[in-house]
Amino acid sequence: MELRPEEAEELAALRSHVTTTRRPSSPGLEARMFEPLPCLDHGFVRVVDYMGDDAAVVQAARVSYGTGTRKVSDDRNLIRYLMRHRHTTPFEMCELKLHVKLPIFVARQWIRSRTASVNEYSARYSILDREFYLPRAEDLALQDNQNRQGRGDSLDAEQAAEVLSLLKHDAMHNHAQYERLLEHHGLSRELARMTLPVSWYTQWYWKIDLHNLLHFLSLRMDRHAQYEIRVYADTIGSLVADWVPLVWEAFADYRLGAVTLSRQMMKVVQAMLAGEPPTLENSGLSRREWTELMEALGR
Amino acid sequence: MELRPEEAEELAALRSHVTTTRRPSSPGLEARMFEPLPCLDHGFVRVVDYMGDDAAVVQAARVSYGTGTRKVSDDRNLIRYLMRHRHTTPFEMCELKLHVKLPIFVARQWIRSRTASVNEYSARYSILDREFYLPRAEDLALQDNQNRQGRGDSLDAEQAAEVLSLLKHDAMHNHAQYERLLEHHGLSRELARMTLPVSWYTQWYWKIDLHNLLHFLSLRMDRHAQYEIRVYADTIGSLVADWVPLVWEAFADYRLGAVTLSRQMMKVVQAMLAGEPPTLENSGLSRREWTELMEALGR
Amino acid sequence: MELRPEEAEELAALRSHVTTTRRPSSPGLEARMFEPLPCLDHGFVRVVDYMGDDAAVVQAARVSYGTGTRKVSDDRNLIRYLMRHRHTTPFEMCELKLHVKLPIFVARQWIRSRTASVNEYSARYSILDREFYLPRAEDLALQDNQNRQGRGDSLDAEQAAEVLSLLKHDAMHNHAQYERLLEHHGLSRELARMTLPVSWYTQWYWKIDLHNLLHFLSLRMDRHAQYEIRVYADTIGSLVADWVPLVWEAFADYRLGAVTLSRQMMKVVQAMLAGEPPTLENSGLSRREWTELMEALGR
Amino acid sequence: MELRPEEAEELAALRSHVTTTRRPSSPGLEARMFEPLPCLDHGFVRVVDYMGDDAAVVQAARVSYGTGTRKVSDDRNLIRYLMRHRHTTPFEMCELKLHVKLPIFVARQWIRSRTASVNEYSARYSILDREFYLPRAEDLALQDNQNRQGRGDSLDAEQAAEVLSLLKHDAMHNHAQYERLLEHHGLSRELARMTLPVSWYTQWYWKIDLHNLLHFLSLRMDRHAQYEIRVYADTIGSLVADWVPLVWEAFADYRLGAVTLSRQMMKVVQAMLAGEPPTLENSGLSRREWTELMEALGR
Repeated sequence: MELRPEEAEELAALRSHVTTTRRPSSPGLEARMFEPLPCLDHGFVRVVDYMGDDAAVVQAARVSYGTGTRKVSDDRNLIRYLMRHRHTTPFEMCELKLHVKLPIFVARQWIRSRTASVNEYSARYSILDREFYLPRAEDLALQDNQNRQGRGDSLDAEQAAEVLSLLKHDAMHNHAQYERLLEHHGLSRELARMTLPVSWYTQWYWKIDLHNLLHFLSLRMDRHAQYEIRVYADTIGSLVADWVPLVWEAFADYRLGAVTLSRQMMKVVQAMLAGEPPTLENSGLSRREWTELMEALGR
Repeated sequence: MELRPEEAEELAALRSHVTTTRRPSSPGLEARMFEPLPCLDHGFVRVVDYMGDDAAVVQAARVSYGTGTRKVSDDRNLIRYLMRHRHTTPFEMCELKLHVKLPIFVARQWIRSRTASVNEYSARYSILDREFYLPRAEDLALQDNQNRQGRGDSLDAEQAAEVLSLLKHDAMHNHAQYERLLEHHGLSRELARMTLPVSWYTQWYWKIDLHNLLHFLSLRMDRHAQYEIRVYADTIGSLVADWVPLVWEAFADYRLGAVTLSRQMMKVVQAMLAGEPPTLENSGLSRREWTELMEALGR
Repeated sequence: MELRPEEAEELAALRSHVTTTRRPSSPGLEARMFEPLPCLDHGFVRVVDYMGDDAAVVQAARVSYGTGTRKVSDDRNLIRYLMRHRHTTPFEMCELKLHVKLPIFVARQWIRSRTASVNEYSARYSILDREFYLPRAEDLALQDNQNRQGRGDSLDAEQAAEVLSLLKHDAMHNHAQYERLLEHHGLSRELARMTLPVSWYTQWYWKIDLHNLLHFLSLRMDRHAQYEIRVYADTIGSLVADWVPLVWEAFADYRLGAVTLSRQMMKVVQAMLAGEPPTLENSGLSRREWTELMEALGR
Repeated sequence: MELRPEEAEELAALRSHVTTTRRPSSPGLEARMFEPLPCLDHGFVRVVDYMGDDAAVVQAARVSYGTGTRKVSDDRNLIRYLMRHRHTTPFEMCELKLHVKLPIFVARQWIRSRTASVNEYSARYSILDREFYLPRAEDLALQDNQNRQGRGDSLDAEQAAEVLSLLKHDAMHNHAQYERLLEHHGLSRELARMTLPVSWYTQWYWKIDLHNLLHFLSLRMDRHAQYEIRVYADTIGSLVADWVPLVWEAFADYRLGAVTLSRQMMKVVQAMLAGEPPTLENSGLSRREWTELMEALGR
């Protein structure tokens, strides 16, 4: 994403404005404030405010345990303990506020997370720019045969070129019609926007606490999430890693990289360790669960 | 909205299935269960489940007041008292669950209400039917000159016909392209749907408690809400009136029909009653507030 | 818990009132409606309303998958799939409303679950009965040496008798003083209640959706939860088992009986299966995690 | 509230630690950070973190209106507009995090506000200090005759002295027994604490966004709120006034000082202005509403 000169200037101004505070700060996140991180072809994520750091999580947890607990465990261990035992309220003490530009169909998935605060650009009030998402050729994929909501193989080069041409042509046409409705017919904005496809870009301010953000990331960084929202989730994840490094490490170990085994799965593992490996048939697992378990066990 | 024969049959089956329960029931809402109430050209709202009635609100309020309060006030008065003093928790004791079919741009406004539970049809998983919203000619309106997010005068007949033809043609074209991407190119559903405009219909199950529903209705039945979402809100309002008639009456008197006057506005009213009417200039009100106040006072 | 004659009569009246409905019903829960299930010495839980059943969860999930998915999987498998993959919104479509009587210190833990609706008896408004929690002798336990927030061995009989006598005497005294403040001094209720200990009983109506209820149960049925709240959680669990048996079975397998293994723990398991069992020292686990893992693996 | 020497030192250290940030800051609130503001006899409120300022509210609102709106209205007017029309999401963009020490019975009222994040001192884990709330003699009041949940006249001096002596004596006794249970009997902390009255002090970290904080304040600064929680609400209000002065001014005018008139009340006002004042009998108002209206109108 290239910034236009006036945008680059605004960014420089925002970043050069420094003040003093008594609040906890995160040097890692301060370094990245306001910088738009490109996502997809026209989108971005940028930090506009935040509250708290690793120590804020620890501070909130410690009040529960009272004075008796000082020095019992150091910050890193306490954060790992909280993450492991899903003690969630201390993580609610930190907040992140982002400015995000994203296609409407991505925004529709994103908003299912109801625990955030959102202010979105209004197409009732203002006119949308001609910015729509056009996938890269290598991101165009066939419908998966097995997974009804997934992508399979990539399109071959010729097909991809045809599809891109079609998508681009239609998007341009839709925008031309949108402008015609507004300018030629004087149609109200709230009606004219009906004709724009969900590939169009919108933008919003989005604020969420760290506990709910991690939950959002665990859903949207997952390989079953649609590629286009994963791009945003991965970008936000990289910000969180700089913001609260101890929390991020614990999250990677106990959530992203963790596996939950059902009661039946645990019995299978126990039997395998006892040298009496069960078969799919007598395991009590469905075929899909069996496959997932063997994958997780590296077998 | 005309039902197809198999839909009419399914509806009849749902409505004929009656069972017994010890739970509180609302005869007014039982009479309307499952019936799809048409909204816009292809949309509908229908009740699929509910919990509680007027008496459930009263019961929850009475526990706060303990045994001392029985018979102190009758149900209607207690409900009016709760509504007037914004005691909201007793209204949370009732729930409504709706099946709704609605255009995507309406769904995007609707979902800003974050206190409901939603399960939406997934266009990653399934293919969307060719159903899109086409306004009636009389609902096509020019952009308002004053209110940046409103509609002004209707389009004249000729303009309206042109606009409708354009909208219809484009929607049909978009759908043809959607099918082409799916069938000819085999593109995955989650990508192909990008090309569909926000006028397309989606559907969802939506469940919300009565307190939050009334808040939703007060926002969406408002004359500043976009016409297309008001149609749905008015329809839901008619269901609530049948479901909890005492609550609805109180809501109409203390919320829908009520006016909130600021500190400065109250001073103006007091001065008027004292026979010393202030002018806009010395009232402390902005021009817009002054106009709103005079309108509310019927002057 | 013995019912007084007038309570037994009221219960019989509530239970004999049966009406017809078009709503989904749960025969298992209908059978238990209004019946107070005793908890601790004076407390109870009783169902006063509910919404939905196993089929309601399935119905909500199916709308996401559209018409293409009918018969792909039967209800039980779909519910297990949703539970396993933590698809939570379909479980939000069911609601349970309970009337609960519980000691104040239990209420204080309970209320940390913020996603429920609550109406509590008000001691500002009404006078509290002389009902306080007195543990059974066998539930009196020494402070645990290891776990700062747990109980260790039981008190011996003599100690237990002394403690009970002290607790009982003080509670009676506190109540006498409460009455004295109210009656002799005419002190306002909102001040007089200050003198009552947190062992006193309060009561409330509590309404929560099934997803959040299961989360509450997974925290409060846990062996680390305080015994007194576990008694309530276990009782509610038995109601859920009758209400939505398929959901309960899935919950038992994929949540209550499941184990989450961290990234490092999974590596240990993989190494053990490969015949190269690591030691605590080179496992990357803390001693406590190592113990937990070995316990989970039945070693 | 007098600080002990080590507390004063810790406070000075916290306040002297200043760092630089690119984030928006509120000079008014920076000046008050960490300082414990006394509430009741042993309680306090102190700011430990915050996010956002008046400009953050404006920034979030402006994204909804897009580029077209810059300079249309200045910040103050926009904030007043948002407050007047109950556009709540921009106010959610600011957060306040407090450390609060408060009696348990106040904490029980406070926690009914479910939209905040809380970490409370745990009496399962740690031992409570001997700190309990003892009202000032002038705050002791008789039960109100009219308002079942309010205070009437003050106790006379003699009665007050007796009541205070009783409250103090009992609190000391309860604490002695608490210590006896812990030390002499070795009873677990989670059981021993049962004997402590709700006048005992607890403490917590409490974090809430500005929209929900204003809602909390409008309920708890109200003259019908119990005096003891009003003391805290008033203190927090004074912090908000320093933090976001434009928001506070709008809140004072459009919420604290505003009056909501029902449909029927508006008719009465209109008739009065038309010189045809109705009587209570033909007004459609209850006696209580009539009184409230006349009071609001200064009649």
